[in-house]
Amino acid sequence: MDGASRLAALEDREAIRELIARYGPLADAGDCAGAAALWTQDGVYEVGGFGEYRGRDAIQALLEGESHQALIAAGAAHVLSPPTIVLNGATAQARNYSVVFRRTGEAWEAHRASANEWHLQRTAEGWRIARRINRLLDGAPEARTLIGGGSPGS
Amino acid sequence: MDGASRLAALEDREAIRELIARYGPLADAGDCAGAAALWTQDGVYEVGGFGEYRGRDAIQALLEGESHQALIAAGAAHVLSPPTIVLNGATAQARNYSVVFRRTGEAWEAHRASANEWHLQRTAEGWRIARRINRLLDGAPEARTLIGGGSPGS
Amino acid sequence: MDGASRLAALEDREAIRELIARYGPLADAGDCAGAAALWTQDGVYEVGGFGEYRGRDAIQALLEGESHQALIAAGAAHVLSPPTIVLNGATAQARNYSVVFRRTGEAWEAHRASANEWHLQRTAEGWRIARRINRLLDGAPEARTLIGGGSPGS
Repeated sequence: MDGASRLAALEDREAIRELIARYGPLADAGDCAGAAALWTQDGVYEVGGFGEYRGRDAIQALLEGESHQALIAAGAAHVLSPPTIVLNGATAQARNYSVVFRRTGEAWEAHRASANEWHLQRTAEGWRIARRINRLLDGAPEARTLIGGGSPGS
Repeated sequence: MDGASRLAALEDREAIRELIARYGPLADAGDCAGAAALWTQDGVYEVGGFGEYRGRDAIQALLEGESHQALIAAGAAHVLSPPTIVLNGATAQARNYSVVFRRTGEAWEAHRASANEWHLQRTAEGWRIARRINRLLDGAPEARTLIGGGSPGS
Repeated sequence: MDGASRLAALEDREAIRELIARYGPLADAGDCAGAAALWTQDGVYEVGGFGEYRGRDAIQALLEGESHQALIAAGAAHVLSPPTIVLNGATAQARNYSVVFRRTGEAWEAHRASANEWHLQRTAEGWRIARRINRLLDGAPEARTLIGGGSPGS
């Protein structure tokens, strides 16, 4: 690659890292529309143990729902780990972990520990999430397959 | 932006990421002067549940104090998550989570889970922390406001 | 540094970040050969509480062993934090935390919280791990010395 392409690739990776890092603070702050806007208009969020939510309105409604609101009202941190990223032109794939801590007494409990696969698209608004697949690491083979098969890092 | 400005912006983001990533190892190793030197000379550290510490000497004294020393002597990990970063010339703002794990019996407990807002400055020494605001995610609205209002990602 | 060197330095840091971020998903997916291939052929993995494993075959055998297999079968997340990185030509050093969460009842427990020092080499295959030193943050001075002494960030 020439210098311009290499610089653009670094910028793409940086923008994707930034996009993924924004989810937690928006979700925990209760900015449900802001969190949903990280997805494309018809983007999909598959949430392990919950279901599949298609489009920004559905994702916003999920976060405005009783389960998420109760979680953040009691004190929660949606912590997302550094992702591995593979660029492929105007699309990209990433993988990382998310751990949701919730306040319990005088400490915090790891309430969810999940694998995430992110399918990303470069849009007129910048990089956005086309599909986020989240699966609980509870011993079910689905989550391990998600992070292992056809690894973006391979 | 031209290529030189774009390269400089990537370097600034990288330097800020590095600065934030250094805090945990210095704090857990008990290198209190090293940790304090991540701040500007008169930088401020607002610690949720503790108070506000102004200047490197005050921050160093905080880390040399009984509470932090007892924590690290028993085994602790100050883990800071990937930040979101917004550059604005010679200043920048970042947000992330910090989770402090402490040894308890045969496992570790999430002793603190906090939101952090970082106000950063480019100085003659490189990027430094002008103000770090840390608030416990214990359900109090202050922490949620911190990560939600005027989000750097917006 | 000129522009070409600065761009190459950013790419090196990005590649090292990617290398470290790949370990968790490969380890949790049970792709033991894939995880071992992150090391150089004769690379070393010192695992706190376990021992020292030299060479890809030994590292793969460790991950194929009963202890790791039981852990991931029950549900585990090997979460690695953002590293600090110091480049030195064709070698580099990094430091970060790793926290292993394991499924326990309805939540996850922080089963291990460790400091890690990474000695990295640029090879014909790309950046690889020459030595990873992992030490439990259980109050023993070894782990604190690891992350404090001769800090790569200093």
